[in-house]
Amino acid sequence: MNVEPESLEALIAEFASLPSIGQKTARRLAYYILSRSKGDVERFAGNMVRAAELVHSCPVCHAFTDQERCPICTEREGSKAICVVEKSSDILPFERSGIFKGLYFVLGGVISPLDGVGPEQLHLPQLINRIKDEGIEELVLALGSSPEADSTALMIDRMLAGVSVKRTRLARGIPMGSDLEFVDEVTMLRAFEGRVSL
Amino acid sequence: MNVEPESLEALIAEFASLPSIGQKTARRLAYYILSRSKGDVERFAGNMVRAAELVHSCPVCHAFTDQERCPICTEREGSKAICVVEKSSDILPFERSGIFKGLYFVLGGVISPLDGVGPEQLHLPQLINRIKDEGIEELVLALGSSPEADSTALMIDRMLAGVSVKRTRLARGIPMGSDLEFVDEVTMLRAFEGRVSL
Repeated sequence: MNVEPESLEALIAEFASLPSIGQKTARRLAYYILSRSKGDVERFAGNMVRAAELVHSCPVCHAFTDQERCPICTEREGSKAICVVEKSSDILPFERSGIFKGLYFVLGGVISPLDGVGPEQLHLPQLINRIKDEGIEELVLALGSSPEADSTALMIDRMLAGVSVKRTRLARGIPMGSDLEFVDEVTMLRAFEGRVSL
Repeated sequence: MNVEPESLEALIAEFASLPSIGQKTARRLAYYILSRSKGDVERFAGNMVRAAELVHSCPVCHAFTDQERCPICTEREGSKAICVVEKSSDILPFERSGIFKGLYFVLGGVISPLDGVGPEQLHLPQLINRIKDEGIEELVLALGSSPEADSTALMIDRMLAGVSVKRTRLARGIPMGSDLEFVDEVTMLRAFEGRVSL
């Protein structure tokens, strides 16, 4: 017998549509929601709708913000360094480490023909224009380490042919605290190739 | 710099309050919500509130339902077998297997003095009354395998002293498809103690 009420099934389906949430976890989360007070559930649902209403992409850098322009674009206007990331949440580790004090630019993904993402789906022309118009001096590419990210970086490099801007990418190697025994072969290859003198 | 809008932080906190969702997963889920259409988010939030409004405990067996009485209590009224489980979602594997065609009773937990759960927090008196009033002939205890579940089962057994009802509990042993090498010692102990003749 189908023992789950239809409204509960609908909520399980919503949770199961989230990334990294399988059917079993979705069911556990939905049952947990039912165990909470009606006020708690309404606050959760309200916060969800409110975030979707208030948060939008910064028109300058495409990071998520609830203001007209994001605080970084506002406070660091005129900076000559720009860091290019795939998605808005990639900005967090930079700001947490405090190592970079420049501007950011969220590309919106990387070129991936298999997934139907071409240069026109990304904010590539806007990036190139910003670099030229604002006299950017250093471009840090922080696009992840997939082959798609590599070819996107290569395309950006080509689009900037003739433009005088220093181009760097993040170093690749062994992450802090990792056991060498469990390092994958590509990481080891990159770490060995990029070995530095003592 | 704090780069996350306040409304996004609030949504991350809501997801992080769910069981088995840590801070990192909560952030990923909240960012994912922002990447969905406003219509999708409103439907998700609406389904959450709707489930909390419509779903309640069946007054007879305490399983979640959106009807006055749950479908199992309605369709199997008069059955003389009752299966006692801790929580509503524990009913699903029974109904999926199709092995049990009787009634259920959701106890609402197990006795656990350390967590402040005594007999009065559970639906124990209602269970005992049902067994007596409805002339139940078999009681299947399916309360999990923790020491708390065992002592709750023992208490139910004592409360039924003098009542003529067959009492069983689920068999304990090696689950299907498991590699003997990785079976924990308590499961092995139970499986060996409960070994059956070929």
